[in-house]
Amino acid sequence: MSKKNKTEEEQALRAEIKALRETLAGQQMQLRDAGLPVIVLVEGWAAAGKGSLIGELICELDPRFYNVVSPVVGPQRADRYPFLWPYAKEIPENGQLMFYDSGWMECAVRRYLRREITGEQYQEYVRSVTEFERQLRDGGYLLLKLFLRIDREEQKKRLRALREDFSTEWRVTEDDLWQHREYKRFREAYEDFMGATGETVPWHVLEGESRRTAVRDALKLLTKTIRKGLEAGRYVGEPFKEDFPMVKMPRLREVDLSPALEDGEYEKELKKLQRRLGELHNLVYRKRIPVVVCYEGWDAAGKGGNIRRLARNLDPRGFDVIPIASPEPHELHRQYLWRFWTQLPRSGHFAIFDRTWYGRVMVERLEGYCTEKDWKRAYNEINEFERQLTEWGAVVLKFWIQIDPDTQLERFNARQNTPEKQWKLTEEDWRNREKWPQYEEAIDEMLEKTSTKNAPWHIIESNDKKYARIKTLRLTISALEKACGEKL
Amino acid sequence: MSKKNKTEEEQALRAEIKALRETLAGQQMQLRDAGLPVIVLVEGWAAAGKGSLIGELICELDPRFYNVVSPVVGPQRADRYPFLWPYAKEIPENGQLMFYDSGWMECAVRRYLRREITGEQYQEYVRSVTEFERQLRDGGYLLLKLFLRIDREEQKKRLRALREDFSTEWRVTEDDLWQHREYKRFREAYEDFMGATGETVPWHVLEGESRRTAVRDALKLLTKTIRKGLEAGRYVGEPFKEDFPMVKMPRLREVDLSPALEDGEYEKELKKLQRRLGELHNLVYRKRIPVVVCYEGWDAAGKGGNIRRLARNLDPRGFDVIPIASPEPHELHRQYLWRFWTQLPRSGHFAIFDRTWYGRVMVERLEGYCTEKDWKRAYNEINEFERQLTEWGAVVLKFWIQIDPDTQLERFNARQNTPEKQWKLTEEDWRNREKWPQYEEAIDEMLEKTSTKNAPWHIIESNDKKYARIKTLRLTISALEKACGEKL
Repeated sequence: MSKKNKTEEEQALRAEIKALRETLAGQQMQLRDAGLPVIVLVEGWAAAGKGSLIGELICELDPRFYNVVSPVVGPQRADRYPFLWPYAKEIPENGQLMFYDSGWMECAVRRYLRREITGEQYQEYVRSVTEFERQLRDGGYLLLKLFLRIDREEQKKRLRALREDFSTEWRVTEDDLWQHREYKRFREAYEDFMGATGETVPWHVLEGESRRTAVRDALKLLTKTIRKGLEAGRYVGEPFKEDFPMVKMPRLREVDLSPALEDGEYEKELKKLQRRLGELHNLVYRKRIPVVVCYEGWDAAGKGGNIRRLARNLDPRGFDVIPIASPEPHELHRQYLWRFWTQLPRSGHFAIFDRTWYGRVMVERLEGYCTEKDWKRAYNEINEFERQLTEWGAVVLKFWIQIDPDTQLERFNARQNTPEKQWKLTEEDWRNREKWPQYEEAIDEMLEKTSTKNAPWHIIESNDKKYARIKTLRLTISALEKACGEKL
Repeated sequence: MSKKNKTEEEQALRAEIKALRETLAGQQMQLRDAGLPVIVLVEGWAAAGKGSLIGELICELDPRFYNVVSPVVGPQRADRYPFLWPYAKEIPENGQLMFYDSGWMECAVRRYLRREITGEQYQEYVRSVTEFERQLRDGGYLLLKLFLRIDREEQKKRLRALREDFSTEWRVTEDDLWQHREYKRFREAYEDFMGATGETVPWHVLEGESRRTAVRDALKLLTKTIRKGLEAGRYVGEPFKEDFPMVKMPRLREVDLSPALEDGEYEKELKKLQRRLGELHNLVYRKRIPVVVCYEGWDAAGKGGNIRRLARNLDPRGFDVIPIASPEPHELHRQYLWRFWTQLPRSGHFAIFDRTWYGRVMVERLEGYCTEKDWKRAYNEINEFERQLTEWGAVVLKFWIQIDPDTQLERFNARQNTPEKQWKLTEEDWRNREKWPQYEEAIDEMLEKTSTKNAPWHIIESNDKKYARIKTLRLTISALEKACGEKL
């Protein structure tokens, strides 16, 4: 090609990029108006230019409505949280774009090639990724997945150039050099990963050798993804159902609520069990087992008091009680599981959720805070989420605190007549009470569809609060003993 | 003492604790109603029982309204953020209690004794602590600072017991053993720290040898602190003023806004400076220098475009643009600097604030979102905050983007007449415009009172946006070169 032709071609490319950037800047405002969130995942080889590609994509964007994260997870930290946690906690809110400078692919592949995880775990990671991406897509997120490719020779040249310059040599890590030496193994692993995760959200491979061409191609893909998304409007995924191994649950109506305990027996047992749970907490901490305890139940069923008894001898440094109220604006503007992802415990810690993600299939369903498709899809999404937790190694305990309507009425009246407890009783509680049959139906469906073998529901008979407290303590202790490989 | 007497005494103590716990549980609801936040700092010797003391304090509390954190900062992470950052980002919101299981005292003392910081830095830490505590108190927080004491013999006994039990031996760290060996040095350091930080918020030393007595005493102190706080109502601190070395600023009216640049010169200079800033970013990253860039200015002054030009060649992995809008509810319910503490950059990174904490002395002042005492106090509080940043090692750049009213009107009209820019213009912008003289007065006062030598204001003449962009780039480059010890 003559020099002149080359220059002309370059100028055309520049003009094309400029026009695409303007389109993207315009689309950004439309995304904002439409409340559509966008995730751009940029994976690729070390030194392929992921960072500068992102720099070229964002340079005309309004910084108020996008973000860039590079959640590189060192090996030492990885297991303190579930595999997908560093990514899930960063998803953008409606109307915003988030660029991931390498993400779940790099993490899965590196951990596998470093042998930090087994082949089986790798398969679990791959499956989690497809679940995660599908859940985001079904929740209305636009996803674009790019892989920036360079060949081994080009990588060699670039790594060398980076290392020869004082101001950039720090950019080349040991891991990068290792990748370069093991180029072939990495290539196979990348291809395998892309093959296994390209069905729901496809991969796009970009040639990184010419930076400008890569920028142009990425801009084309991104503007196209957004254009199509804007045309189609917010996507709401169809309900679906995977066959999880389930535990059969009784209907709430069939539950015998007569069990009760004498004061003396209760006090004795309570002390003993609390002490035992305190001991186990040490062991759980030592073995780095994460514990997720979920409390759901009727208003006035006694969740608060039950939680206090459970937490009594836990080390306060190692547990959090997480009260779940109606979502705040910044929570409403993201996929509904986000605010739970961000509250997961570190391994070795307890997170005790006072109400949970099951709000989706109870109050949100009944009050119309989400569409029918949304809550119908949620059963499976929640099962997937909880499986990701148990695969990480978490003990997941789910307690449904059960009372009958008469007991609730008694307790409501008692609250109303006790000045220091009146604040606990709201108009909403009375309104919810009127919908008891609808709630009961929803709860029965929830228990039926989400009591998986790895994270089964436990119904806690709480007409007698003392009995309920002892039961949750026993169940917790027994689950932890099993996880720790210990017996009482 | 006879056995019988002892038992009687113990029973009396138990009863006393029970009564105090009930008082505390009742107060918790009053705190909630009054919207008063409480911080309980529990410092003390290793194995003195800080954790279990907190466990005893919280066991009757409603978990929705309190939290426990133990922000232990390892030496390696410490400098990635300012000294107070791990604590400042955890302050409770109104109506909530937060328990710190050791905090700023332990961190300062250990870092000093480990020689990770110099004596001068230690003094800076101490001063920062007094500033931090005063700011919280003046912002309406109730603070209780406890130090749990045990003598060397008792510590020896406890450490041994912990180490002899498999389930607890992990609790004894190398640091704890080192503390035990160096008991005397630690005692002196603790005493020194308490002496230097006890004036604004006093310290209370509790004897940790008898756990029950310590619990009783802590409960007494806590319920008393809360009772007095509830009686007095939310405290609003008096304005005050420390003499910071200042840079003299001109009045806005005196600023000559005629400087402008030709297109050709601008383009050439822009490219050159952007490239240079990109290089410096590498160096800044390598030297782990944190960079905080603050943009303030009139509506339509050109902040957004200016920021985009500044960020153009920065590595997207290493900077964040942080748009500051009106605070969300969870932000409003905490001290006003909290939402900025949580957004500080890691060392080596840039945080570019599109509007800042200066909202306190501009919009919040003029719209009555805070009291007169609040905004008058804020000048000094902000100077302290920024000094903490620069002592950490941050480069703090503050740009006031200046235009005149005519230029603003032109740009407002242009926005109104350009469909894709209309969203940028709101009713509020027009309302603010009407208050130009009041804003100008507030801004002049702000520039005068917060242009400290360590973090001076730069007025950026932006009637010509090109000139403004070049000027902020130059100022940024020159500040970074100085910090890196490099010249252009």
